[in-house]
Amino acid sequence: MPEPERYALEPIGTVRSRLSDPASAPRQGAEGAPEAWIEIDPAYADALAGLGAGEEVVLLTWLHLGRHDVLRVHPRDDADHPLTGVFTTRSQDRPNPIGLHRVRVLEVEGGTRVRVTPLEAVDGTPVVDIKAVLPRSGE
Amino acid sequence: MPEPERYALEPIGTVRSRLSDPASAPRQGAEGAPEAWIEIDPAYADALAGLGAGEEVVLLTWLHLGRHDVLRVHPRDDADHPLTGVFTTRSQDRPNPIGLHRVRVLEVEGGTRVRVTPLEAVDGTPVVDIKAVLPRSGE
Repeated sequence: MPEPERYALEPIGTVRSRLSDPASAPRQGAEGAPEAWIEIDPAYADALAGLGAGEEVVLLTWLHLGRHDVLRVHPRDDADHPLTGVFTTRSQDRPNPIGLHRVRVLEVEGGTRVRVTPLEAVDGTPVVDIKAVLPRSGE
Repeated sequence: MPEPERYALEPIGTVRSRLSDPASAPRQGAEGAPEAWIEIDPAYADALAGLGAGEEVVLLTWLHLGRHDVLRVHPRDDADHPLTGVFTTRSQDRPNPIGLHRVRVLEVEGGTRVRVTPLEAVDGTPVVDIKAVLPRSGE
């Protein structure tokens, strides 16, 4: 395989959350995560056009606290779980630590701030994309 | 907002598909997309440990043919659809063209090749992550 090209991800916004400690944050949104604000860089405000309260979207984040050099983990950091490849898990430790979060939009304020729930990402997490949910599978 | 940091995405593999023409490829996997092989860079083979036939995973790709400078699109390239922000769509044209594909694993061969279905990404599309599907929402 030839030397792979690398791609540059540009943050489009930032998570603002009352969660600040990764150790005590829920592992998944459905595990009691709070609502949070997504602050979108004004340069990308046009890309939010049409987004409204009540919609479900998939938020993609850059899990900046994840380790890139980990290929196997004990799922949920539980040593009782056997070591398994990170591609079969949702661990934040993975070669490209992109987080996927299905959230509901509660409010869009001023064209650049979006209140969503539930979100387990901690305050300061970079946001790299927002996508429509597909009807079929909810991904 | 301070100048945002950029993040480097490292491809972990490549899509091998009979689809080569983006213009005629299905828009979504559920729209008649074929099966495809994912060739994983051997450096990341350990991260596949435990992946087996029958499992559903979310594949993340880098939609290398997408345009990064597009913030509004006519959904599905249909001029009858009003211009809308790309963050409310699944367009491949978006600031960070990451593709999300929910697929079923048909076969894992030699520890680095994974046959999946259905996949609308064209041959040569870089793969950047593979994730477990969450029980709740299927994302």
